Amino acid sequence: MADNLGNVKVLLFDTFGTVSDWRGSITRMGERLAREKGIEGIDWEAFARAWRAGYRPGMARVQSGERPWTTVDVIHRERLEEILVDFGIADAFSEEEKADTNLFWHRLDPWPDSIPGLLRLKRKFLISPLSNGSIVLLSSMAKRAGLPWDFVFSSDNFKAYKRDAAVYLGAIDMLNLEPGEVMMTAAHNDDLAAARSHGMRTAYINRPYEYGQDQTKDFEAEEEWDVVADSMIGVAEQMGC
Amino acid sequence: MADNLGNVKVLLFDTFGTVSDWRGSITRMGERLAREKGIEGIDWEAFARAWRAGYRPGMARVQSGERPWTTVDVIHRERLEEILVDFGIADAFSEEEKADTNLFWHRLDPWPDSIPGLLRLKRKFLISPLSNGSIVLLSSMAKRAGLPWDFVFSSDNFKAYKRDAAVYLGAIDMLNLEPGEVMMTAAHNDDLAAARSHGMRTAYINRPYEYGQDQTKDFEAEEEWDVVADSMIGVAEQMGC
Repeated sequence: MADNLGNVKVLLFDTFGTVSDWRGSITRMGERLAREKGIEGIDWEAFARAWRAGYRPGMARVQSGERPWTTVDVIHRERLEEILVDFGIADAFSEEEKADTNLFWHRLDPWPDSIPGLLRLKRKFLISPLSNGSIVLLSSMAKRAGLPWDFVFSSDNFKAYKRDAAVYLGAIDMLNLEPGEVMMTAAHNDDLAAARSHGMRTAYINRPYEYGQDQTKDFEAEEEWDVVADSMIGVAEQMGC
Repeated sequence: MADNLGNVKVLLFDTFGTVSDWRGSITRMGERLAREKGIEGIDWEAFARAWRAGYRPGMARVQSGERPWTTVDVIHRERLEEILVDFGIADAFSEEEKADTNLFWHRLDPWPDSIPGLLRLKRKFLISPLSNGSIVLLSSMAKRAGLPWDFVFSSDNFKAYKRDAAVYLGAIDMLNLEPGEVMMTAAHNDDLAAARSHGMRTAYINRPYEYGQDQTKDFEAEEEWDVVADSMIGVAEQMGC
C-alpha cells in the first residue's frame, strides 16, 4: 500500500458502472420480461443504453435548479415512459408493470470481481456506496446481490447529485473524518476529480465495457489517482487487504 | 401480522438498549481493561451506568441550542473524562488509552435475541438503526457484532438527536416513503411516542434490564403500540417473519 494511504478509514464507492453492471443487468431483465410477455423484436441492450442516456439530463435539471430535489427513482421512471414509447412497446405495459420495471435498477448484478474485492476491503475499512441512487434502491440492490456495505450514503442524504460539491463535503462531514481519511472509488475520472478537489483519496477501477458502444471516455485513468486498478480485487490488493 | 401493518417497508431500530446491551458490554470491557492494567477496586457496572448518565445531559445542551451540533462520540469522550476522575483512575489512562476506551461504545454486544430476530426481519423488510450514535460508531458496531443492517441512519444524518422531530421526519423524507410505511422499534416509550406523533408505525421491545438499578421507566408498554414484544424474535414473529 502506498505510504500516504495509511490513514484511510472509509472507502466510498460509485455504484452504477463501478460496482454494478447496469448495462448487462438491464439487458438480461428486459430479455426475460420480453419472453414472459411475448414481446419480440426489441434490442434490449439498446434499450438499456437508451434508459441510461436519460440519467445525466434528468439530473442536470435538478442540478441547475430548474427543478427541486428529485430522487433518482423518479428520473428513472420518467425516462422509462419515454423509451417505452420510443421502442414502440408502451401499450404492452400496465401501470403496475411499469412500476416493477422501474425496479430493474434496484436489482442490478455486480461485476464478477465486486463482491470478492469488497469482502476483502471490508475486513480493514468501513465501506459504503456514495451513489446517486436512492437509499431504498441502494440497500435493496445490496440485499439482493449480497453487497456487504457497512452503511449506505445516497444522494438522498445530501439532496444533491455527484459531481456537486455538496455530496463529497456532506459525506466527509457526516463521517466526522478528515478528507484524507476517506477514499472515493469510481470507474469515472470526473467523479474522482471532484473527490480529489475536496481532499479525498481516490481509487480508479477501469470498466471499459460499462457503456458498450455508447462509451466515449473512461477507458483509462486520466490522472495519477492514489490507486489505479482493473478490478475491485486489484483495489483490495493495493490497499493491503 | 396485524392488518394495518401490511404496507410497512422499512423497520428502523433504536440501538443503545434496544439492540445492544450497553450496560453489560461496558462492564465486561471495563473489567477486562482493569485486569490488563492492574486496576483494582472499581465497580465497572457502576462505571457503565455513570458513563451512560452523562448521555442525556450532553445531548440536552445540543438540543437546547446552547451548543452547536456535536456527534455522540464527543459527548461520550467528555463524560469519560469526568468519570475517570470521579472513580479516581484518571492518572492510569494515557491519551491513547482514553481514545481507545471511548471506542467501547463502538464495540457493544447485542442482546442475545437481537441478531436472530434481525436476520428474520431482514428477509422481508429493509432494516436500519435510527440511533443517536454516530455513523462510524453504528457501522463499526455492526461490523464487529454481525448486525445485518441494510443501511445506517444516524443522528449525524440529521444533525439532531431523538426525540427531536427532525430525526423522524428526516428519516421518512430520505426514504421517500409515507410515514406509515416506516416502523420505529425501540425499548423506550418516549421514542415510540415521538415516532407515532409523526405517523410512523411502532414496535416496543421490553428491556427491563437495560439500566440495572438506574432503571426508572420502560418496564412495560405504556401505549397500545402496533407491536409489543419481549424480544426481537417476538417482533419478527408478529411481523410475519
